[in-house]
Amino acid sequence: MSPAPSASTALPATPGELRRSAQDHLWLHFSERAEFEQRPLPVIARGEGCYLEDVDGKRYLDALAGLFAVQIGYSHGEEIGEAAAAQLRELPYYTNWNAAHPRAIELAETVAGLAPDGIEHVFFTSGGAEAVESAWKIAREYHALRGERRWKAIGRDVAYHGTSLGALSITGLPDLRTPFEPLVPQVGHVRNTNRFRRPAGETEEQFTAFLLDDLEHRIESEGPDTVAMVILEPVQNAGGAFTPPAGYFAGVRELCDRYGILLCADEVITGFGRLGDWFGSSRYDIRPDLITSAKGLSSAYASIGALLIGQRVAEPFTRPGASFTHGITFGGHPVAAAIALKNIEILRRERIVEHVAEQQDAFRATLAPLLDLPIVGDLRGTGFFYALELVKDSATNATFSDEESHALLHEFLSGRLFEAGLICRADDRGEPVVQISPPLIAEQQQFDEIAGTLRTVLTEAADRLA
Amino acid sequence: MSPAPSASTALPATPGELRRSAQDHLWLHFSERAEFEQRPLPVIARGEGCYLEDVDGKRYLDALAGLFAVQIGYSHGEEIGEAAAAQLRELPYYTNWNAAHPRAIELAETVAGLAPDGIEHVFFTSGGAEAVESAWKIAREYHALRGERRWKAIGRDVAYHGTSLGALSITGLPDLRTPFEPLVPQVGHVRNTNRFRRPAGETEEQFTAFLLDDLEHRIESEGPDTVAMVILEPVQNAGGAFTPPAGYFAGVRELCDRYGILLCADEVITGFGRLGDWFGSSRYDIRPDLITSAKGLSSAYASIGALLIGQRVAEPFTRPGASFTHGITFGGHPVAAAIALKNIEILRRERIVEHVAEQQDAFRATLAPLLDLPIVGDLRGTGFFYALELVKDSATNATFSDEESHALLHEFLSGRLFEAGLICRADDRGEPVVQISPPLIAEQQQFDEIAGTLRTVLTEAADRLA
Repeated sequence: MSPAPSASTALPATPGELRRSAQDHLWLHFSERAEFEQRPLPVIARGEGCYLEDVDGKRYLDALAGLFAVQIGYSHGEEIGEAAAAQLRELPYYTNWNAAHPRAIELAETVAGLAPDGIEHVFFTSGGAEAVESAWKIAREYHALRGERRWKAIGRDVAYHGTSLGALSITGLPDLRTPFEPLVPQVGHVRNTNRFRRPAGETEEQFTAFLLDDLEHRIESEGPDTVAMVILEPVQNAGGAFTPPAGYFAGVRELCDRYGILLCADEVITGFGRLGDWFGSSRYDIRPDLITSAKGLSSAYASIGALLIGQRVAEPFTRPGASFTHGITFGGHPVAAAIALKNIEILRRERIVEHVAEQQDAFRATLAPLLDLPIVGDLRGTGFFYALELVKDSATNATFSDEESHALLHEFLSGRLFEAGLICRADDRGEPVVQISPPLIAEQQQFDEIAGTLRTVLTEAADRLA
Repeated sequence: MSPAPSASTALPATPGELRRSAQDHLWLHFSERAEFEQRPLPVIARGEGCYLEDVDGKRYLDALAGLFAVQIGYSHGEEIGEAAAAQLRELPYYTNWNAAHPRAIELAETVAGLAPDGIEHVFFTSGGAEAVESAWKIAREYHALRGERRWKAIGRDVAYHGTSLGALSITGLPDLRTPFEPLVPQVGHVRNTNRFRRPAGETEEQFTAFLLDDLEHRIESEGPDTVAMVILEPVQNAGGAFTPPAGYFAGVRELCDRYGILLCADEVITGFGRLGDWFGSSRYDIRPDLITSAKGLSSAYASIGALLIGQRVAEPFTRPGASFTHGITFGGHPVAAAIALKNIEILRRERIVEHVAEQQDAFRATLAPLLDLPIVGDLRGTGFFYALELVKDSATNATFSDEESHALLHEFLSGRLFEAGLICRADDRGEPVVQISPPLIAEQQQFDEIAGTLRTVLTEAADRLA
């Protein structure tokens, strides 16, 4: 009955002690435990602007913005720290369960004000996966309240929507799903907007028609009146920054309307400026019923996400006795809400979203010459959100076998880029790509540095292949 | 392409403006949207010790610790704010994906040091539901790495484990599950340890034998080699503080060992002092393979949770090439980790866990006289974690119909307790109960205040029934 004895409070301090303690106690995400027996674990200690520094004093340009998240960069800790501390003094915690507090209310009003027309309500979560879970759940309950039993979701191939079991079911990456099946019934996956390697001569209109036909076929084969929701990223991250062809989202919206299906835009990555607009839904005129958000909402200074809910979805929940039977202890956390409010204030004051819109072409123009390298087959993306697809030979665009891809990315590129002081993501969840998604404050100097380091390291990679 | 125009930055300020804005934009959790058209939404503005104050200046004793979470009470914002601000200045965000940072390492080592023997590794999440999702996923992948395909989980009737679709599948509350089916296959639910209304004359040993027989029957009827995990709270919250009978957890452990099933203790509520020990698993010698944690880990000052992983579970993941194919962007957030570290420092320095162990009998003794009221049938719980079960007449322990229960709780008790300045939870997820779970700094003065207000309000409730 007596409390457990206190563990030692002498915490690890030196880089060596930190790495040993991490190996013993900290279970990393998406990581092989054995890997850091072989090479030193990166331990990041400090941030400034677009740069990070590890415990050994080595400096990195973070061309991944943490994980597609740190829109304002790492130097706003002072100002955001004051907002967090003030909130912690005033009210360190309260719920959004049958009650509220000022910061959650203010943040909901602020986010609704930035969202596309028709999106009026905000349900807060602790992160992106919870927002996706909440989207699927509200879609199911929305239809149930209207007397329809619709439970299925439709997502896209290779798309990542999170790893909790509901979000994972929507994720279109078999390697992430298979170890954990059976998942939530049922999700259909349709073609994504990857246009690289489409048949020669196919026009953009033809590609759009192909994609919409695939979606409609899938809806019909599932049974239209069983489908609750279609969920898509405005620009798909996994696979490498797949932008939509002209007419795509108008066609998706039309199909959803025709079959009574809710449309959810997953803007966990694309929201809050990544594409040069507050929401990708505005940029592409997607007109979604639901938007999922996280990451950039707080620039990852706090763990907070949100489901944005349109008027049409809200309607059946306004009836007496109706409720969304769903809740999260930390949803709308007052300190996270205070941090997100300050983040949005900084994004506005510093004109950071406008900066992305203004600089995106320069960024792309700086990356484009990398297409001259024989290992680079494609440059995709928009805003501050790009991917290079790596190929065996850009003359043929022949791709790598799984073994070759693994050797290239895991045995060479990831480590070598890191060694060269550039954090970006060499990813092979689809074909091998290098993902580039810096803080939204990046300027020409960082564009040049990213392109320069990539040129050096990708040239080495190509030489190894030769 | 141009950014959306900025929304107005004039945020709501007066109580009336805040309530109107909340009704328009903030979607509450587990709440009827129409409800706050009828009565004013509680908007909580400030906290101090065990007390909260709303925007109208009304003061409440928070006998629910936020949501079973604010162990240290609301007055440590200054000290925790300094820790958060320092971390925000140093490194506002970084991941636990193939990298780490000092605060996550320090927190993992600290938590592992407090955990029961054999628990060595910590995987951080953003909250409790994500910890439960992570537990089920690691259980599935653990068995797969050992060459067994086991996917099922076994939970308990009326138990709450969260609302993301995986956690919801484990949750044993049909009202929360049904609107969202089909869920993740497959979860079996067994009897919980509610001893109220068991047959007269049944001994504790007989009750334990009954429960273990039910669990073993369930394991066998599912097919033992399909069951990945049994997940149980040390003291079950939903239904009202069901403590385990003697021998129960030893028997559960023995069944799990016999059938090769992992045992997970869900300590999202019971961890970090609620039961007068750092973990309920230590108090009841549960010897789990996995522990889920959140809430008290940071006293809810930040949204952070954790999955604690035992050596046995870790073993197959240490092989070269093996990994837990799972990750969360905000897992191990440096600011949340800094806050959790400071929370644990405060829990230790102020001897708060010891305070619960020392005061729990006094707390119970203060509540026990409420059993004299004809509307109170049972007092259950331990530590600072109690529930009163309400009955029509304590002479017979006859319970209420669903309609009577709804009228009692929703039309009278919840509002009346709030009006009387006491926040606790009148809950009818099982039989109607009043849940009492104050900050762990509560003292005799708060015990008296809780019991006094409950006596007044429950007497009124009984008079209404008469």
